[in-house]
Amino acid sequence: LARRCHQRSTAMLDVPFLPFCAFLGTLGLLCVAMVGTWCQHWRGGFSLDGSSRTFNWHPVLMVMGLVVLYGAAALVYRIPTTWSGPKLPWKVLHGSSALGAFVLTVLGLAAVFHFHNSQGTPNMYSLHSWMGLGTVLLFSCQVGEPPWIPQTPLASRVFHPHLLFPQWAAGFGAFLLPWAPAWLRALYKPIHVFFGSTILMLSVASCVSGINEKLFFSLKNGTTAYKLLPAEAVFANTLGLLILVFGVLVVGALARPSWKRPDSDSPDSRQVRDALGG
Amino acid sequence: LARRCHQRSTAMLDVPFLPFCAFLGTLGLLCVAMVGTWCQHWRGGFSLDGSSRTFNWHPVLMVMGLVVLYGAAALVYRIPTTWSGPKLPWKVLHGSSALGAFVLTVLGLAAVFHFHNSQGTPNMYSLHSWMGLGTVLLFSCQVGEPPWIPQTPLASRVFHPHLLFPQWAAGFGAFLLPWAPAWLRALYKPIHVFFGSTILMLSVASCVSGINEKLFFSLKNGTTAYKLLPAEAVFANTLGLLILVFGVLVVGALARPSWKRPDSDSPDSRQVRDALGG
Repeated sequence: LARRCHQRSTAMLDVPFLPFCAFLGTLGLLCVAMVGTWCQHWRGGFSLDGSSRTFNWHPVLMVMGLVVLYGAAALVYRIPTTWSGPKLPWKVLHGSSALGAFVLTVLGLAAVFHFHNSQGTPNMYSLHSWMGLGTVLLFSCQVGEPPWIPQTPLASRVFHPHLLFPQWAAGFGAFLLPWAPAWLRALYKPIHVFFGSTILMLSVASCVSGINEKLFFSLKNGTTAYKLLPAEAVFANTLGLLILVFGVLVVGALARPSWKRPDSDSPDSRQVRDALGG
Repeated sequence: LARRCHQRSTAMLDVPFLPFCAFLGTLGLLCVAMVGTWCQHWRGGFSLDGSSRTFNWHPVLMVMGLVVLYGAAALVYRIPTTWSGPKLPWKVLHGSSALGAFVLTVLGLAAVFHFHNSQGTPNMYSLHSWMGLGTVLLFSCQVGEPPWIPQTPLASRVFHPHLLFPQWAAGFGAFLLPWAPAWLRALYKPIHVFFGSTILMLSVASCVSGINEKLFFSLKNGTTAYKLLPAEAVFANTLGLLILVFGVLVVGALARPSWKRPDSDSPDSRQVRDALGG
């Protein structure tokens, strides 16, 4: 009896990947729908005129790009159907969805800089902005930087998307196509994987600090003060918690050994050693 | 030559645990020293009179308990000297440092509730407070809750430290002492490990949103407005980034396969299966 009980409990722990993914996709779409609803219904909608309606693109693009599409890109190689057959189409999917996430992120940055500059507000003073820009800089390394030129000055590039494309093309070319030596890819992979999860954690922390800050800015008066917890506050707080749950589930899924491609089940150092020896 | 070059690079990736730990300990102490300096030097110091000097205990106790001591407790089993010989002393160290972290955390909650109640400010309206309390509730499950009574209402307990001790004693007794069946401990372990990292991520996200919010509250006037980036803002923003780095390094260290106890190198499901079979 005890034995049967264990097996049932073990099976409970062993969540299958695809239903988990369907749940995660629904949660991600819900986050995007909720951030859009928040900005449309309570914050006045969207425009490009430099007003707070321009700012509203910032949370929407960041949740879409730096959280949901980023999370989807990170999970591509966890899909069991990617484990056999040619790897190239999956590499293209991983690279292009990461590039899409990066484009949305840069547009999200542009929205808040345009808003601040139109209003005469300084940029880059809050902890939210420092953490958020740090996250985007790390993401730009991850998307574009081949590991053999780590000394490239990134800060001057991130605001110039036309300079980022060749950089991204270099990284894309090095890892997508077979001309990068196997030892280099084996060496770089654990670094890429570590920063992949780290960037998602930082972007989720940036989102929640940004939502918190925006609610303190916006909900100041009378019956809609933040501390009276009006409907908008409950809605946006719930959005923040759902973004946290999404981030934790993606980072947890990435860390789960049994969901990794079979060749990455071994410890990270052994993996590199095998690649060197083999 | 290429071969030698790989080996050097591989060795570079293979950071030894103890120097890493010394660095992490220094970083953790620096975070505690900085949060104390911030509150003492810029925010008026500490008292128990219900003023903002009572609030100041909140960031100090949270950084000490829910980040630094929590991180130290989480890393105990990564110390290679714990891998041989009797496990009991290390279990006592892990359990008692986690309990210490929890006591500091509950005192940190008490500080902010006492401050709000003295000032007539509502509790629990901001996203920071929702996320922070969620983190503490998860931590209370992790510290005190034996997995066979998951239905216990936690919310009513977390504010009553005298009720938490027997709860913690039950969890402590179940996992510290040999009377919990091996299959149950093997089943619960991956859950405990997953929530161990998750709680640290959430507590770091709570810290940065709290520091961000406190700076917007405190730096409002004239030449010391937050947007003018006075010395206090640079100092506290830097503190926030260091807390993020500390959290990322601890979560990364916990995830690193080659730093796990040798018996946990296998995928999580296999680990449970082995325990059941053996």
